[in-house]
Amino acid sequence: MFTAEQLKTFTQHIFQSIGFSEADAQLAAKTLISADLRGVDSHGIARLAGYVRLFDHGRLNPKPNIRIVHETPSTGVVDGDAGVGLVVGPKTMEIVIEKAKNVGSGWISVQNSNHFGIAGYHAMMALEHDMIGMAMTNAAPLVAPTFSLEKMLGTNPIAVAVPAHEEPAFVADFASTAAAYGKFEILQRKNLPAPLGWAQDANGEITTDANPIKNGGALLPLGSDREHGSHKGYGLGSIVDIFSGVLSGANYGPWVPPFATAGFMAAAEGVGRGTGHFFGAMRIDGFRPADEFKGHMDNWIRRFRSAQAVEGKQVLVPGDPEREIEAERLRDGLDLLDPVVQSLEELGKRFGITL
Amino acid sequence: MFTAEQLKTFTQHIFQSIGFSEADAQLAAKTLISADLRGVDSHGIARLAGYVRLFDHGRLNPKPNIRIVHETPSTGVVDGDAGVGLVVGPKTMEIVIEKAKNVGSGWISVQNSNHFGIAGYHAMMALEHDMIGMAMTNAAPLVAPTFSLEKMLGTNPIAVAVPAHEEPAFVADFASTAAAYGKFEILQRKNLPAPLGWAQDANGEITTDANPIKNGGALLPLGSDREHGSHKGYGLGSIVDIFSGVLSGANYGPWVPPFATAGFMAAAEGVGRGTGHFFGAMRIDGFRPADEFKGHMDNWIRRFRSAQAVEGKQVLVPGDPEREIEAERLRDGLDLLDPVVQSLEELGKRFGITL
Repeated sequence: MFTAEQLKTFTQHIFQSIGFSEADAQLAAKTLISADLRGVDSHGIARLAGYVRLFDHGRLNPKPNIRIVHETPSTGVVDGDAGVGLVVGPKTMEIVIEKAKNVGSGWISVQNSNHFGIAGYHAMMALEHDMIGMAMTNAAPLVAPTFSLEKMLGTNPIAVAVPAHEEPAFVADFASTAAAYGKFEILQRKNLPAPLGWAQDANGEITTDANPIKNGGALLPLGSDREHGSHKGYGLGSIVDIFSGVLSGANYGPWVPPFATAGFMAAAEGVGRGTGHFFGAMRIDGFRPADEFKGHMDNWIRRFRSAQAVEGKQVLVPGDPEREIEAERLRDGLDLLDPVVQSLEELGKRFGITL
Repeated sequence: MFTAEQLKTFTQHIFQSIGFSEADAQLAAKTLISADLRGVDSHGIARLAGYVRLFDHGRLNPKPNIRIVHETPSTGVVDGDAGVGLVVGPKTMEIVIEKAKNVGSGWISVQNSNHFGIAGYHAMMALEHDMIGMAMTNAAPLVAPTFSLEKMLGTNPIAVAVPAHEEPAFVADFASTAAAYGKFEILQRKNLPAPLGWAQDANGEITTDANPIKNGGALLPLGSDREHGSHKGYGLGSIVDIFSGVLSGANYGPWVPPFATAGFMAAAEGVGRGTGHFFGAMRIDGFRPADEFKGHMDNWIRRFRSAQAVEGKQVLVPGDPEREIEAERLRDGLDLLDPVVQSLEELGKRFGITL
């Protein structure tokens, strides 16, 4: 068991070792470990070695000049300067929050970035300002659109965070696929098959293969197949891709570069710069008084949470499961898988840092 | 067979007969018939009698004072004054387009409206201004969240329209459910079962009942069940509900009033005013030069459309099917079902208008 603080400090020191400023390393560590805290283990410290590998391959700039390259009062494009998405994201959220303070809302599309951790972390930055926050990102192609044999989209997640008054915030944060990639990784480790509807094989047939990418297959969009609305999941993933990639001047669709994970390291011929993100913030009182709105959000949340449920189940409000895991892990600590601990020990050894 | 012009003229005259101004009646007719043209027959002229019934029940104001009740440079709330959504929608889109011209983007949440036809029509209004358009709406509860026995959300559609240069625009327009309600209506008429994954029965079990609402069941969110991501479809429908209803001061969740369709006429105890919508527009050149962007959209669209497909299929770009139907129906005319023709003849008889 590790404490969150322990993991944050270790992560910060690793990032400082590859040239990050102390402030950036601290911010990157906070963003990264928020994934572990919220139960999205696949996007947390398990990826630290991947970020270092990105640096080793010259694809991560430890001292980026993150800046606005074009803007209007409510919109703009940020150049991440090949900095880590874990830092580019929060810095861009600060800009959209500032724009929202000035003119009601802010919307920034980001080019030249890379993996930003969990989308929910960024969206939630808006909450303390009585704003709705939004974050999305494109990613390397793993997903086949409806009827496609080719992988054309990433798992392209969307997060929307909405403040309430007495109730905890509404935080939806989900991949636009039937199942997030982390779900496949869990099955791979346990040597279990995937449910039908999560993936297709190299011939476009549905499969229970829990490692479909390795075998020439692809993940399926939310909806799984045409009859169950996969064209909607594909549409949603496309919107994320266009907002994040085409609007910013980053790569998009099949051209999005891979994260530095084993097996995904091949170079991609680009149509833009790096990975793209899209962030937004809307001031609640740009619509109606914040107190009034938050009172109604309490009502919304309570009504949904108390909806009559099927036997033995409860209707959850988006954000409930992650918040419960976070409370538990802050109290009891975080358990890491052996291969993750091993990868951290290797990093520690390389940079002379103990976990 | 009818021509679109014929249906528009008839619709316009019906709306004028219940007190609409000529301009509003024309606009409402254009909006309504766009659904028939794009193949969304359930949202087109088949609903005309329903709008008249809304008027008969005192829930539709033929001479609304549609106005902004609160705003910032990029956001605001519009009061639809119980006007028809078919008119409230386009008038609000004009406001968000104007805001986008001024500060880069515009976002309006609408209260006190009702059914607005197809979301795609509104979103597409932004295209000629080199803007991305967005439209969504909440609706009367037909959908059970994951694990819920109760119907808590409408089919809550989202539309996003993105301009391209030589290629036709990208237009995603979809309900946040496994299947739109119109799909059930088609099956009901043909007396066919629904595919598993579209609906649940009164006990929360999946069912092939094509009329699940009538029998105490519910439609399922996109994703169908927990294992296939129904919590994501539920999250998406919730976001639409919050943006449309809670942000505007309209009704939300289970309180959204029913459209004037047989069987859905019961009064709802409200938490706000009428039905809610949410509209947005973002100026492309608020991010990067419009020509550059549209060139990349052409590239995006061509790459996706030419993706290697499963035998006998083609990868479609969102908006392709609707555009093809529209071209066909503009050329060959529109066929209406007998019950629809009958309902129009009854309306015509009542108001002395011939189809």
